[in-house]
Amino acid sequence: MLVNCAAYQQGRKIGDIPLSDVRKYTSQPNCFVWVALLEPDESELAAIQTEFGLHDLAIEDARGGHQRPKIEEYGSTLFIVVQTIEVDHDDLHAGQIAIFVGPNFVVSVRRGTRYGFAELRGRSEQEPEMLSHGPAYVLYALLDAVVDRYFPVLDALTAETESLEETIFAGRTGRPQIASLYGLKRKLMQLKHAVSPLLEVTGKLHGGRVPALCAGLQDYFRDVHDHLVRLDQLIDNLRDMVTTAVSVNLSLITLQENEVTKRLASYAALIAVPTLIVGVYGMNFAHMPELQWRYGYPMSLAVMAIADGYLFYRFRQAKWL
Amino acid sequence: MLVNCAAYQQGRKIGDIPLSDVRKYTSQPNCFVWVALLEPDESELAAIQTEFGLHDLAIEDARGGHQRPKIEEYGSTLFIVVQTIEVDHDDLHAGQIAIFVGPNFVVSVRRGTRYGFAELRGRSEQEPEMLSHGPAYVLYALLDAVVDRYFPVLDALTAETESLEETIFAGRTGRPQIASLYGLKRKLMQLKHAVSPLLEVTGKLHGGRVPALCAGLQDYFRDVHDHLVRLDQLIDNLRDMVTTAVSVNLSLITLQENEVTKRLASYAALIAVPTLIVGVYGMNFAHMPELQWRYGYPMSLAVMAIADGYLFYRFRQAKWL
Amino acid sequence: MLVNCAAYQQGRKIGDIPLSDVRKYTSQPNCFVWVALLEPDESELAAIQTEFGLHDLAIEDARGGHQRPKIEEYGSTLFIVVQTIEVDHDDLHAGQIAIFVGPNFVVSVRRGTRYGFAELRGRSEQEPEMLSHGPAYVLYALLDAVVDRYFPVLDALTAETESLEETIFAGRTGRPQIASLYGLKRKLMQLKHAVSPLLEVTGKLHGGRVPALCAGLQDYFRDVHDHLVRLDQLIDNLRDMVTTAVSVNLSLITLQENEVTKRLASYAALIAVPTLIVGVYGMNFAHMPELQWRYGYPMSLAVMAIADGYLFYRFRQAKWL
Amino acid sequence: MLVNCAAYQQGRKIGDIPLSDVRKYTSQPNCFVWVALLEPDESELAAIQTEFGLHDLAIEDARGGHQRPKIEEYGSTLFIVVQTIEVDHDDLHAGQIAIFVGPNFVVSVRRGTRYGFAELRGRSEQEPEMLSHGPAYVLYALLDAVVDRYFPVLDALTAETESLEETIFAGRTGRPQIASLYGLKRKLMQLKHAVSPLLEVTGKLHGGRVPALCAGLQDYFRDVHDHLVRLDQLIDNLRDMVTTAVSVNLSLITLQENEVTKRLASYAALIAVPTLIVGVYGMNFAHMPELQWRYGYPMSLAVMAIADGYLFYRFRQAKWL
Amino acid sequence: MLVNCAAYQQGRKIGDIPLSDVRKYTSQPNCFVWVALLEPDESELAAIQTEFGLHDLAIEDARGGHQRPKIEEYGSTLFIVVQTIEVDHDDLHAGQIAIFVGPNFVVSVRRGTRYGFAELRGRSEQEPEMLSHGPAYVLYALLDAVVDRYFPVLDALTAETESLEETIFAGRTGRPQIASLYGLKRKLMQLKHAVSPLLEVTGKLHGGRVPALCAGLQDYFRDVHDHLVRLDQLIDNLRDMVTTAVSVNLSLITLQENEVTKRLASYAALIAVPTLIVGVYGMNFAHMPELQWRYGYPMSLAVMAIADGYLFYRFRQAKWL
Repeated sequence: MLVNCAAYQQGRKIGDIPLSDVRKYTSQPNCFVWVALLEPDESELAAIQTEFGLHDLAIEDARGGHQRPKIEEYGSTLFIVVQTIEVDHDDLHAGQIAIFVGPNFVVSVRRGTRYGFAELRGRSEQEPEMLSHGPAYVLYALLDAVVDRYFPVLDALTAETESLEETIFAGRTGRPQIASLYGLKRKLMQLKHAVSPLLEVTGKLHGGRVPALCAGLQDYFRDVHDHLVRLDQLIDNLRDMVTTAVSVNLSLITLQENEVTKRLASYAALIAVPTLIVGVYGMNFAHMPELQWRYGYPMSLAVMAIADGYLFYRFRQAKWL
Repeated sequence: MLVNCAAYQQGRKIGDIPLSDVRKYTSQPNCFVWVALLEPDESELAAIQTEFGLHDLAIEDARGGHQRPKIEEYGSTLFIVVQTIEVDHDDLHAGQIAIFVGPNFVVSVRRGTRYGFAELRGRSEQEPEMLSHGPAYVLYALLDAVVDRYFPVLDALTAETESLEETIFAGRTGRPQIASLYGLKRKLMQLKHAVSPLLEVTGKLHGGRVPALCAGLQDYFRDVHDHLVRLDQLIDNLRDMVTTAVSVNLSLITLQENEVTKRLASYAALIAVPTLIVGVYGMNFAHMPELQWRYGYPMSLAVMAIADGYLFYRFRQAKWL
Repeated sequence: MLVNCAAYQQGRKIGDIPLSDVRKYTSQPNCFVWVALLEPDESELAAIQTEFGLHDLAIEDARGGHQRPKIEEYGSTLFIVVQTIEVDHDDLHAGQIAIFVGPNFVVSVRRGTRYGFAELRGRSEQEPEMLSHGPAYVLYALLDAVVDRYFPVLDALTAETESLEETIFAGRTGRPQIASLYGLKRKLMQLKHAVSPLLEVTGKLHGGRVPALCAGLQDYFRDVHDHLVRLDQLIDNLRDMVTTAVSVNLSLITLQENEVTKRLASYAALIAVPTLIVGVYGMNFAHMPELQWRYGYPMSLAVMAIADGYLFYRFRQAKWL
Repeated sequence: MLVNCAAYQQGRKIGDIPLSDVRKYTSQPNCFVWVALLEPDESELAAIQTEFGLHDLAIEDARGGHQRPKIEEYGSTLFIVVQTIEVDHDDLHAGQIAIFVGPNFVVSVRRGTRYGFAELRGRSEQEPEMLSHGPAYVLYALLDAVVDRYFPVLDALTAETESLEETIFAGRTGRPQIASLYGLKRKLMQLKHAVSPLLEVTGKLHGGRVPALCAGLQDYFRDVHDHLVRLDQLIDNLRDMVTTAVSVNLSLITLQENEVTKRLASYAALIAVPTLIVGVYGMNFAHMPELQWRYGYPMSLAVMAIADGYLFYRFRQAKWL
Repeated sequence: MLVNCAAYQQGRKIGDIPLSDVRKYTSQPNCFVWVALLEPDESELAAIQTEFGLHDLAIEDARGGHQRPKIEEYGSTLFIVVQTIEVDHDDLHAGQIAIFVGPNFVVSVRRGTRYGFAELRGRSEQEPEMLSHGPAYVLYALLDAVVDRYFPVLDALTAETESLEETIFAGRTGRPQIASLYGLKRKLMQLKHAVSPLLEVTGKLHGGRVPALCAGLQDYFRDVHDHLVRLDQLIDNLRDMVTTAVSVNLSLITLQENEVTKRLASYAALIAVPTLIVGVYGMNFAHMPELQWRYGYPMSLAVMAIADGYLFYRFRQAKWL
């Protein structure tokens, strides 16, 4: 689906144009075309491939939806793939944006993502002095937006971790908590999967030999790179804490076992001791004076109650009960 | 066994030829020979060594079936070893393909693999414009096919992991589950063993100093390399999840132990309490009024039933039963 | 809030100046201005941006309070971010200092930190020969002060670890100890988070291509770098010990379980054995001579006491009780 | 002990010579001397040091028997140390071979190894065309032989691992199995200790700046290097599996504990239930009709038997027994 | 405290000299001064700083006693810090030696170490041909001596590990063993702390750009470096084994728990079975023929003894007792 197709000159929007008129504008100086596609079908991909002269292998990657973030140069065209991560109920949902950047065009192909970049386009059009940097600026704006959207995802995972920690240390740890820890690990891996290879991409856009297209915007790409480095480290930290939480949790469960054992043993003692006493008075000795006492029976009950009371007090003191 | 031996000119098949005629074709311009061997015996290896002038050490490696994936240059000839991994019931089966690529020949020596590349040859012959790139294109096509076959293997292991996770978190974890986790780890290692060194191979074919033979096809080899990078990372992720699953599983088993202990203790209490009560009425005190009551016996039974009923209700509430 | 704004010539303080007079001094030779801001509002940031011609992206980073330590060059201006870590009761509190260094100015923007650098300014003003090195010396002094403040934090964490170790090996390990271990891990991560990226910063200030501004002070920056390397390694060591403590702690808890089990079993035996004996004399055989003995009953009690005494002695010896 | 000392010209053996005649031969063109020493005493070491002009520090290393594999250049002489690993009953035994290679001599000093290289010398003498490459070829042959002898050691460790896995997963895991896992880990470390530093040695002999002596034989040294890379990776894999086995084993032991607990509890129930029943009929109520029944006693025994039969059936079904 | 201060010419000792005469000798050709200080006070440090023109920051590091091993160049002077590790009862004690090496002087400042280098000085003076290499040779001799002293420390830790392993696998594992394992880990870390950064130091003294002072002695510094590499790897191995021992120990403790549980259950059964039997004969049925038998009572005791005997035999066979 064609979401948007507009031509810009010197940073100002000339207007929305049909895909077939693209060449009219890309041949003019200081002019570029910005195309946004959403889940395009074969014919749409074929159209942009012809219009902008894109490489077979790049189109192939834009077609399939599960590429690893990467950057590739095909002649003067840059091909960039980034992953979007969106929180979907209790799970993460990965989408993909493939971006083709040429000297006078930007094409973004979005797949499997809920939120688009219409707002970003609007904001960019308010700043013609920035937009006049051409397609590389649009690339920067897109990357910046994608990276900014990772932060709330990480925040959600951090919050989930903290709430889990609280539950666990409060002594309520069971199957659901273990499953959550495991799920957290997986989600962090998914996020890492999106962030880490992107670091390589932005690294190539600001350090060493920068593609000609992006020269002059290195400070901006370095800024995106910085955010990614921070994100990457935060993800690693959280992963490390989750790993520690898994092993700490095992200690807590074993401790719980200790406590259960002590509690059970206490109750067992509360039953076993009177059982012994009643056994004593069940013996058939001919000469057992207590058996003949008038208040032997209630006295024996009292002895049992006192014994149990004393035990109960001791167990309480020792925190076994 | 000689599977196939054909000559190609300008990307078009001239025809199947006997191994002994090979030199007739390799001496012509724009012409190359593509030979496929399956589990060749000594005489066949000796024949191709003589025909194509291959190095002793390379032939040695093609003879033994358990090499590590690698690439070596012997003069103008490239020698490449790749591993094939095939799912074999509940296990993985590793085979090996040794590929010799010269300026006008490609020889593949397949060992221990079930599936060949006849279909690949057919498909390639349909695209003479690609095949006209010569032996390097055949190398690309073979590598691409081998790498593509790793993905379903990884998918199978991923599916196995997910089904294991489900079983484990459903609380049904025992010896078979632990053995499966261990087996998964081993299978992932085997796959990794095939993929990781291959990364080095494809890396040498598209970046830095590319062998003269493969110049002009870098974009294609980079594409294979990209797939391998993705695969490699996915394997690492799965390995990491399996390692986490092992330690999480221990927590679950310990938890199970807690639950078993609680359940047993509950049942023990249901027996111990009435045992105490019957003990009481087994005492031989001369003055125990209840013993003389008309309905003392059924009453005592009722007391026991009520006590057990109450305990049962409490244990249920506490989720111990 | 503007904390301080003073001009220095040849290392000697000329006087406190209003922010608006800054250009008068920065245009003079051998003269520089040192500005300190604390939690500045938008207008203050805007003022210094105009006065010193700072880059948008750097100002952006000085505004938000959670940057990763880093160094960036914008033309002839250096932009450096460091994190401060302060012990706050039982937790660590992270602040940030953003430092802009130009050929004739230093601006520090402090956020979220309790302790300032007034004392450092005083000390520096006592050493005009050092201060005459200009803004780079101020940068060195600030970095040195920040790094020196990490050491007491690490000392506090080391002391906490040691006290935990003592508690654990004394056999008193429970939920609070596990939570403390986990908390230690997190705090060490937070400290590491501040220290590790700073290493990169100081590395760029003394090795390889040093920014022109800092030439001549490499020995000093190397000294700061050395302290950071030491700190970084000490943090890693402590982290490693905490990780070991977590797993060792699990062993201790499991051991504790063994001991509890043995203790309980001993007590159970002390009850079960007499229970069996009283059962024997509760049997209704017609011919049980003991039952008729005059002192049968006390004798049976004595047998029980002796049996328990013996058992108690044995359990003591075996260290079960 | 001098094992062997022979002179070779153009790859053909001239004859065994006394150590004192060495200089006669090393001064001739295309001629070299190959000396093999076994556990030499001080005087022998002194003799070869003088004859071949070897460096003090190298002789020092050849004297002590526990060097790390390494390669060093002293002028035009190469000094190489390799470790031999031999299976010795249930343990591994490490020896050392120090090799001095000069333009026209090879001296090997063997310590603490059972198997020598007489056979290798014989085989080499059959291939004069190879041996005519001079001392570097002898070095290659020695390295190749040493590396080839690591493979059966690894095979033995692999077999030991597999047999352990089988035992463990069959549910028979106890102290000996744990000790074996630990022992395996140590043996793998020992093997790794021999292999890993050797990688560095062979790497220096075929890539980058190759010592002049070894030029022309790079393909051969690369082949040895390849074997070592494979070996190194296989060792890492096995180590990883052993580590996994250790943690999996803990799960199995904990599971075993669960099973033991269940089994014990089942037996306890089989005793406790009839104990309750006999308690009931031990009560002294005046009105308990069953007690007067003619067949009350056998009936009560039957009730107990039926109760236990039913319980036994249930436990069997639940796989507790 | 000034331990020693002597002048040497052409490798021969001229004599002990007062610190104030130092310049007389350092200005002569082929002459150098070797000064050894032990825990010097401020005035002594000030004296050598003035005499030899040492840098403020280096003196600062020599003052404080807890530096990380490092090498720094201040003009033509080398500043080196190494750590000494000495076994102190059951603990390790770290000291520090700071060494200043100039073209014609060596100053060593020792802190917190028990053993000095008087013997080393004596030995060196016996070898004037070596000592004639000047201050760099003294540096080599000092480093060599320090590194040689690490080996017995490692040997002690290795012996401690082996004795612990023995205890653990013999089934005697408790709190002291766990504490020892933890302590071993800490001591290994301390040793590693001394060795690893020193590797960097010696690396700079023999490879790449060697400081002018040390040229000509590379082979010797490489030798020290080799020893450190070996030491470093041995420490890593031991650390790895200790880590494995910690996790293996947990398995052993859990196993111990299994055994204790089984043993307890066996004893419980030996009591529970007769308890059931005596319960049977405690029942009050009117018609229980056994009760009237003449030898009913001893018979019942015999039945109990036989039952227990049988159980005991079975438990022994199953290795539960």
